[in-house]
Amino acid sequence: MKVSDGLKTYTKYLWFNTKKTREYIRITDDIAEFVQESGIKEGFVLVSAMHITAGVYVNDWEDGLIQDIDQWLEKLAPENPDYKHHRTGETNGDAHLKRILINHQVTIPITDGKLDLGPWEQVFYAEFDGQRKKRVILKAMGA
Amino acid sequence: MKVSDGLKTYTKYLWFNTKKTREYIRITDDIAEFVQESGIKEGFVLVSAMHITAGVYVNDWEDGLIQDIDQWLEKLAPENPDYKHHRTGETNGDAHLKRILINHQVTIPITDGKLDLGPWEQVFYAEFDGQRKKRVILKAMGA
Amino acid sequence: MKVSDGLKTYTKYLWFNTKKTREYIRITDDIAEFVQESGIKEGFVLVSAMHITAGVYVNDWEDGLIQDIDQWLEKLAPENPDYKHHRTGETNGDAHLKRILINHQVTIPITDGKLDLGPWEQVFYAEFDGQRKKRVILKAMGA
Repeated sequence: MKVSDGLKTYTKYLWFNTKKTREYIRITDDIAEFVQESGIKEGFVLVSAMHITAGVYVNDWEDGLIQDIDQWLEKLAPENPDYKHHRTGETNGDAHLKRILINHQVTIPITDGKLDLGPWEQVFYAEFDGQRKKRVILKAMGA
Repeated sequence: MKVSDGLKTYTKYLWFNTKKTREYIRITDDIAEFVQESGIKEGFVLVSAMHITAGVYVNDWEDGLIQDIDQWLEKLAPENPDYKHHRTGETNGDAHLKRILINHQVTIPITDGKLDLGPWEQVFYAEFDGQRKKRVILKAMGA
Repeated sequence: MKVSDGLKTYTKYLWFNTKKTREYIRITDDIAEFVQESGIKEGFVLVSAMHITAGVYVNDWEDGLIQDIDQWLEKLAPENPDYKHHRTGETNGDAHLKRILINHQVTIPITDGKLDLGPWEQVFYAEFDGQRKKRVILKAMGA
């Protein structure tokens, strides 16, 4: 157990503007760099999608699996003109549900100044309604 | 990066007793007020449903979408007399699964003393087996 | 609201090597013991599966429900030889999706030195591709 005098907090925003409606972008290195900048040796970093048609998840960096995930999300939360949400003029009801399914945030432990992830854990930004500017917040806290 | 001397923690419980079995209640303002009371300027607030047939999620404050979410949860985790859980006398197997699907907690960043949410992010308590008293814990930590 | 001088952090890893491909193992007591060891009275403990074919969730400690959860996960994210991920030689595409569905981490509040869980909340490690060594990180932070 470690005891430290001061509490450090550090905040940054990542911006995305994807070319396609749905995209899965690896952000592990951005988060690792952010944590190094923070100087925090022990703590947590929260990674949270700030738009309600996007998510953040931790899984494999393998193209086939990313396609599997995309098809699976589309199967369980399909594009469909009949969502009640579309009465507002929106057309992205499926994107709101896909965000719920994949979840929109992860907390990553920081140990010895580094992301304490398993050997295959990679962090992804999941865009479900792209082609416009969106943000992810990175916020680290620790000592 | 900010360094502070003391660590502040603050805890409170929200109580719910919904009229219907399933309800979706916006709690963003309750959490914002709680964070203001805490005096925490930089940190995290955890919002977590303490009963295993309820959840917490962050999505749009739009009635059509809330109905879409409810129908989608019912489609993927339907009411069904055949759950093995019902051998105990319970009838709420679907509510346990709906909680898993929507997730039961979120961590919200606090920046400059305020909830650091995106423009459309609203926090909801999702009740799946209501008509009785249930709690959500709010716990903030920071400086 | 409590103010403390020092920040404590404490980290430990739980190891699993299940006999079956899919298993659900209650770990509430391990986490409670870990928090007691940490000496932290107010804070958070993160519980996160470090392998991308396993998850962590909080729900009921009831055998029928655990079977319901297993069957539900298999229904929504079934074993299937056709996943594109299998072109790599892997056979566990379903396990990656099951981890997404159930989620891979929880944050548990610590209040008065104890896990601040609801009366029925129990923490489970969910293995979806077992029979080999895997880790869960426990990381607590607070004062």
